[in-house]
Amino acid sequence: MAAAVVLGGPAGWWRWHRRVRAARAAMVCSRAMASKTPVGFIGLGNMGNPMAKNLVKHGYPVIAYDVFPEACKEFQDLGAQVMDSPADVAERADRIITMLPSSPNAKEVYTGANGILKKVKKGSLLIDSSTIDPAVSKELAKAVEKMGAVFMDAPVSGGVGAARAGNLTFMVGGVEQEFDAAKELLTCMGSNVVYCGEVGTGQAAKICNNMLLAISMIGTAEAMNLGIRLGLDPKLLAKILNMSSGRCWSSDTYNPVPGVMEGVPSANNYQGGFGTTLMAKDLGLAQISATNTKTPVPLGSQAHQIYRMMCAKGYALKDFSAVFQFLREEETL
Amino acid sequence: MAAAVVLGGPAGWWRWHRRVRAARAAMVCSRAMASKTPVGFIGLGNMGNPMAKNLVKHGYPVIAYDVFPEACKEFQDLGAQVMDSPADVAERADRIITMLPSSPNAKEVYTGANGILKKVKKGSLLIDSSTIDPAVSKELAKAVEKMGAVFMDAPVSGGVGAARAGNLTFMVGGVEQEFDAAKELLTCMGSNVVYCGEVGTGQAAKICNNMLLAISMIGTAEAMNLGIRLGLDPKLLAKILNMSSGRCWSSDTYNPVPGVMEGVPSANNYQGGFGTTLMAKDLGLAQISATNTKTPVPLGSQAHQIYRMMCAKGYALKDFSAVFQFLREEETL
Amino acid sequence: MAAAVVLGGPAGWWRWHRRVRAARAAMVCSRAMASKTPVGFIGLGNMGNPMAKNLVKHGYPVIAYDVFPEACKEFQDLGAQVMDSPADVAERADRIITMLPSSPNAKEVYTGANGILKKVKKGSLLIDSSTIDPAVSKELAKAVEKMGAVFMDAPVSGGVGAARAGNLTFMVGGVEQEFDAAKELLTCMGSNVVYCGEVGTGQAAKICNNMLLAISMIGTAEAMNLGIRLGLDPKLLAKILNMSSGRCWSSDTYNPVPGVMEGVPSANNYQGGFGTTLMAKDLGLAQISATNTKTPVPLGSQAHQIYRMMCAKGYALKDFSAVFQFLREEETL
Amino acid sequence: MAAAVVLGGPAGWWRWHRRVRAARAAMVCSRAMASKTPVGFIGLGNMGNPMAKNLVKHGYPVIAYDVFPEACKEFQDLGAQVMDSPADVAERADRIITMLPSSPNAKEVYTGANGILKKVKKGSLLIDSSTIDPAVSKELAKAVEKMGAVFMDAPVSGGVGAARAGNLTFMVGGVEQEFDAAKELLTCMGSNVVYCGEVGTGQAAKICNNMLLAISMIGTAEAMNLGIRLGLDPKLLAKILNMSSGRCWSSDTYNPVPGVMEGVPSANNYQGGFGTTLMAKDLGLAQISATNTKTPVPLGSQAHQIYRMMCAKGYALKDFSAVFQFLREEETL
Repeated sequence: MAAAVVLGGPAGWWRWHRRVRAARAAMVCSRAMASKTPVGFIGLGNMGNPMAKNLVKHGYPVIAYDVFPEACKEFQDLGAQVMDSPADVAERADRIITMLPSSPNAKEVYTGANGILKKVKKGSLLIDSSTIDPAVSKELAKAVEKMGAVFMDAPVSGGVGAARAGNLTFMVGGVEQEFDAAKELLTCMGSNVVYCGEVGTGQAAKICNNMLLAISMIGTAEAMNLGIRLGLDPKLLAKILNMSSGRCWSSDTYNPVPGVMEGVPSANNYQGGFGTTLMAKDLGLAQISATNTKTPVPLGSQAHQIYRMMCAKGYALKDFSAVFQFLREEETL
Repeated sequence: MAAAVVLGGPAGWWRWHRRVRAARAAMVCSRAMASKTPVGFIGLGNMGNPMAKNLVKHGYPVIAYDVFPEACKEFQDLGAQVMDSPADVAERADRIITMLPSSPNAKEVYTGANGILKKVKKGSLLIDSSTIDPAVSKELAKAVEKMGAVFMDAPVSGGVGAARAGNLTFMVGGVEQEFDAAKELLTCMGSNVVYCGEVGTGQAAKICNNMLLAISMIGTAEAMNLGIRLGLDPKLLAKILNMSSGRCWSSDTYNPVPGVMEGVPSANNYQGGFGTTLMAKDLGLAQISATNTKTPVPLGSQAHQIYRMMCAKGYALKDFSAVFQFLREEETL
Repeated sequence: MAAAVVLGGPAGWWRWHRRVRAARAAMVCSRAMASKTPVGFIGLGNMGNPMAKNLVKHGYPVIAYDVFPEACKEFQDLGAQVMDSPADVAERADRIITMLPSSPNAKEVYTGANGILKKVKKGSLLIDSSTIDPAVSKELAKAVEKMGAVFMDAPVSGGVGAARAGNLTFMVGGVEQEFDAAKELLTCMGSNVVYCGEVGTGQAAKICNNMLLAISMIGTAEAMNLGIRLGLDPKLLAKILNMSSGRCWSSDTYNPVPGVMEGVPSANNYQGGFGTTLMAKDLGLAQISATNTKTPVPLGSQAHQIYRMMCAKGYALKDFSAVFQFLREEETL
Repeated sequence: MAAAVVLGGPAGWWRWHRRVRAARAAMVCSRAMASKTPVGFIGLGNMGNPMAKNLVKHGYPVIAYDVFPEACKEFQDLGAQVMDSPADVAERADRIITMLPSSPNAKEVYTGANGILKKVKKGSLLIDSSTIDPAVSKELAKAVEKMGAVFMDAPVSGGVGAARAGNLTFMVGGVEQEFDAAKELLTCMGSNVVYCGEVGTGQAAKICNNMLLAISMIGTAEAMNLGIRLGLDPKLLAKILNMSSGRCWSSDTYNPVPGVMEGVPSANNYQGGFGTTLMAKDLGLAQISATNTKTPVPLGSQAHQIYRMMCAKGYALKDFSAVFQFLREEETL
C-alpha cells in the first residue's frame, strides 16, 4: 500500500537524563554503527524479518526471538543473538520492537509466563508494531508502566515490499516525550513516522484509515462495475470519477479494474499487494473498536462482512482490490 | 459540488448539411449574439432558472415553458417567449433543453398529451439535463428518433451555485456526431462538458459518481467518528487519512467534520451544498439501475438506505455531509 | 414453499348482469364441465403449463398462447385452441389468465403491437398471475380499464409442485366485486385465494412476504452458522430457537442446515424448492417498490445483494436456503 | 420476551460424593426450607434483585453483594447476609450466582483484587447469569477450574417481569454432570432451564437467538411498512404473513405495528418489553463472537448498526419493536 505519510517531526534524540549511551549512538546514526546499544526484536515473520534486517543494516546489534526457532537462524548468521524467550530478550535489551500477528500473541509475548514483563528493565522502551485492538494496546501499556518501562504502539502501513525497502509508515501512539526515542529506531525501517497521540491512537489511526480504504475500494468496485454494465468504457469512467467528487485513492492510484491502470495488482491478476485476509483482519479490529465505543459504522461493518465472504470464496490470498472481480462475476444458470 | 471535470473535445460546430443557420450562430458564439436561433428551455426550477438565464446572457433567444406559470414570468421580463406547453416550444425551437425533477416528469414532457413529440421538427436536437433512470433516457431517445429528431442525455454535476456561475459539469450521452452541437449550448451553462458514450451513459456516469461519492462520504464520516472516539484529534486524523490510502474527495476537499476545514458545509452547520434529499434520489436511481442490470452494489444499496433514513430524521434539507452528525449522535438513556 | 394461506371468502359467483353464461358455468363447477365458456391462458412455462392443465381438468376449454410455439403443442393435444398472438386470445375468450416471467413481458402481452388490448372485449376479466412490480400492475389496470375491461393481479405463492397439485396460493388485488369471479377460476389451480385490496396489493403482499422470508432465512442461516461455530449442536440450537423468540418459518419448517430436518431442500443438497434466482428477482421487485415509495428497507436491500452475489457464485439454481452453505464456507488460505 | 423454552431434563440432584448437605437440601426443595445451605448472589440490579428474592422465597439463605451498597439494604431487611466483596461471599457460600451488566464487570467480580477466586472453596459451583461474550465465559471457566471449582454460564431470556414472576428461561453451558445441581437453584428463578453444551454455549444460544430475533423483527418492520405504503391494510398483511412463509415470532406474537395486536409493546407506545439498548448490547456480543470465529453475519451486523443508530436517536429506552416507528417516519422537507 503506497501510503505517502509525511514525516511528523524533527530528527530523533534519546532522552539525555536516562539513557546517555543510547543518545550518543543516536547522534552517529547516519554515520557509523560502532557504539550502538542492542535492540530486541520479537516476531520475525513476513514483516518482522525484513524490518529486523533493516535494523541490522543500520548497525544495531539485534537480540532476536521468534516462537518458531527456524525463523531465527537467518539472524544468527547475520550476527544477531537469538534468545529462548521474550523474557530473555528483555533481560539483555532496553529497547524492544515487537511485530506479532494478533492481540492474543501480543498479550502472550508481553504478559505471558516467559513474557517481556518477567524481566523488563526499568526505563526500557517497548514498541509494538503489531496491528491489534487499541484496547489491548492500552492494557499492555498499563502493565508495562507498572514495571517502570515505556510502551508505544506503532503499527505500520505498507506491506512486505515497503518493509524490505525500509519505507514503511509508522503511526505512533504513546507519551509524546518518548516519541523521538522511538523515531530513532523506526526511521531505520520506515520513511514516515507519524505521532498520533496517546497510547492506542497509532492503532486507531491505522484501523480508521484501513476501514475507510476498504469502504472506498468496495465502493469503487461497485461504481466501476455498475458503470460498465450501463455501457461506459472503464478507462473513461475512471477518468470521470477521478476528475469528480467520486475520486479516491482506490479509483486514482489503485484502480481495481483490470486494464485501467498499470503497475497495480488489478493489472496482475490481483497478485501481490494487500491480501484480502489481512484486510478482513483489520476490519475485524475496526468492528471490535466500534462495538466497544458504541460507534455506528454501517458501511464499515458491511465491508467487513464482504471481505469475510471473499476469504471463504477463494480470494483469501488475492489483493483486496479483487473485490471488483468478486462482485463482477456474472449470474449464470 | 466542486467537480473538476476537464473539457472533453474541440470547440462546438453545428452540422452543416442540416442546420446552416445554427452553424453560423455557433461560429460567432464568443463574439456577438445577433443572429442566434432560439433555444427552447423546459423546466425553470432551482436549477433550470439560472441555466436558462445563462443562455439568455449568451445571446440566445429563449422559448420557455414551466408547469408553474409563475416560474416563467421572470423570463418574460428578460424577453423570452413563454409557451403554454412543451409541444408549443417544440413548434418554435429546434434545439430544446429540458431540466426536470424526475423520470415521470421527463416522460410527460416528452411523450405526454402536450409533449414535445407532438410537434417536434425533424432534425431537432433535444438535450435532457434531468437526472433520471438511464433506462428512461434510452426509451425517450427511441421515441425521439422515431420522429426524426436527436436526443442526448446531459445530466449535470454541481448545484445551484455552479448553475448561476455557469460552471456546471455536463456528462453527455448520445450519438457522437451530435456532441459538438450539444456542447455549443452546454458551454454557455457549464465549464466542463464530457462525452460519455451512447445515450444513457451521461446518466450512468453521474449515477456511478454520486454512488461512489455517497459511499466514501459515509465511510469518511464513520472513520472520522470512530477515530475521534478512540482518542484521535480530528484535524490530525484527517491529515493522516489524506496522506494515506483512505484519502478521498470527501476527506480532503469536503470533510464532513466541523472544524477540520473552512468553506465547506460542515463549517456552516451543513447548510448549502448538496441536499440529503437529492443524494437519496440519485442513490435510488443507482439502485434501480443496479437491479435492472443484476449488478451487486452492497454498499451502494446501504448508502441509499442511510440517506433514506436521514431524510426521515430531519436531515432532508441539510448537506449530505451531515451524515457525520447523523452517525455521531451519542447514545443516551 | 408450503405457505398455508387459508381461503378468504365464500364460493365464487360470476356477476349475473354481465356474464350470465359464465355464472351458470360456475354454478356447476364442482359437478360437470359441459357448458363452460372458454378461458384464455397466456404464458405456458414451468408454472403456466401445470396451471393451464388444471383448468383443462376442471373442464374449461382453454385458448392458449405462448411466445414459444413448442410450449403450446402439448395443449393442442389436450384439445386446447392455440392462437398466434395475445390479441387473438382476447378475441375469443372474455376471461384470460396471464403467467409471465417479468414486467416487460407483461407490458408486451397486454399493451404490445399484438397485445391483449388490441382486441379485448368489453367486460372481459384479465387476471395476471405473474410476479411483477405493483406499479406496473397499476399501469396495466389503467390501460385495461380504458378498454372497458377488468384487470386483477393475482401472483402465486408455491412452486412448480404446488402448481401441479393445484394447491397454489393466490394473492389477489383489484376491484372487490370482481373477486368472486376471479376466485372461480383460481380455485381450479390453487387451494388458497386471498383478497388483498385494490389493484397491485396482490403483488405487494407477495413481495412483502418474500422479502421477510429472505431476511429471516438469511438470519436463520447466520444464527445457525454462528451457533455451530461457537460449539452448539445444530439440532439442539434449532430446537432452542424454535421454542424461543428467534422462531420463524425458516427455522421451524424449512431449516437451512443439513441434518436438522427431513424432507426439505437442505436435506437434499438444496435441490428443488424455491430457486435463488427467483428469490433474487422478487427481492429486486421489493427494492424497486421500496425506492419508489421512499421506504427504508435496510435488511431487505442487503438480502437482495446477498442473493444477487449467490447467483453469481454458482447458487443460481439451488434452493434459496442454500444461503447457509454460501455463508458457511470456511476461510482457507 | 415470552420465550417458551421447555424444561430440558429430570429434577435436580446435588452430586452425592461432594456435597451431601446440599443434596439433602435439594431433596426437600419443594417442601420445607429449613436446612438449605446458603447461596451467594452477586449483582442485585434490575434483574438480580427479583432473582435473588425468588431464592429467598424458596428458603435459601442468601449471602449478598453488590458494588452499590444501597442495592443490598433491602436484602438485609429480608434476612440476607451482606458482604463487602465477592471474595467474602465466596468464603461463606459454595454456590454462587452472579448477574452482572457486562464482560469487564464479570472479570472484575471473578478475577479482580477482591474477586470470588481470592477465597473460593474447592468444589464450589459458580453460575454466571450475566449475558457476556462466550469467550470471556470460557476464560472465567478456566480460571475457576484452576481453583478446583466449577463454572457454568446460564444467561437468561425474559425481562424484569419474568424475573419477578420466576419464569425466566436459563440457557446453561458447562460440564453436563453439574447441570442438575445448577438446575436445582435455577428452577427457583425460572420455569425453563435448558442444557446447551460445554461452557460458553449458554451464551452462544442466547446470542444466536437474539441475533435472529433482531433480524426478523427489523425484517417484519420493513415488510409491514413497505406493505402499508403499497396500500395493504396492516392487519390483513399481518394475517397473510402469518399464514405464509414470512411468519415469525415478531410477526405473529410480538407484531411491531400499532393496532395489529393487543398486549404487546407496540400497543402501548413501545413501553415495557425488551429495551433497544439491551438489544444493541446483545448484538454487539454477537458481532464480537462472529468476528472472533470469522463467521460472516451480514444481516446480524446490519441489525447491530440499526439498533446502535436507534439508541442515538431517542429510542434507547423503548422496546426493540420500535424499529417499526424508527423506519416508518416520513420524509419531510
